Amino acid sequence: MDIAIIFGKLLREERIKKSITQEELSHLCELDRTYISLLERGLRQPSIKTLFSLSSALDIKASTIIIELENRL
Amino acid sequence: MDIAIIFGKLLREERIKKSITQEELSHLCELDRTYISLLERGLRQPSIKTLFSLSSALDIKASTIIIELENRL
Repeated sequence: MDIAIIFGKLLREERIKKSITQEELSHLCELDRTYISLLERGLRQPSIKTLFSLSSALDIKASTIIIELENRL
Repeated sequence: MDIAIIFGKLLREERIKKSITQEELSHLCELDRTYISLLERGLRQPSIKTLFSLSSALDIKASTIIIELENRL
C-alpha cells in the first residue's frame, strides 16, 4: 500500500488516541488544519521535519511512527 | 542542529559506507543526482517516500536512519 496512505492512517489513529482535534494538532505543529487533513487522507506526505513536528506534538517518537509504518507496508 | 543537516550527513555516511557514488545512488532511487547532492548538504529534506527509497537503495531500514537521526538531534 502507498506510504502516504499508511502514514495518514497512523497519524489519524495517534491523534484520536491523544483525543485532540485536527485544529488542535495544527496549532501544536504550526501547520495548517487543511494540511493535517490532507496528510491524514494520504493526499500529501510529510517531509522528515514535519514528521518530527507531528511526532513531538503527539508525544511519540518519529522512529516509532516509522517502525509502525514499516510493519504495515 | 537542523534535521536536514543531520539527515544529509547520515545519508552521505551511509552512501560512502556502501561505496556508491551520488550518481549511482540517484539511479537506484530514480532521483536526480543534483537532488542527492542537495540532500547530503542539508539544503533539501526528503519526504518520507524519498526516505524509504533512499533507505531501500542503501539496504538499510528507514527506521534505522530515523533512530540515528534522533540520537544525533
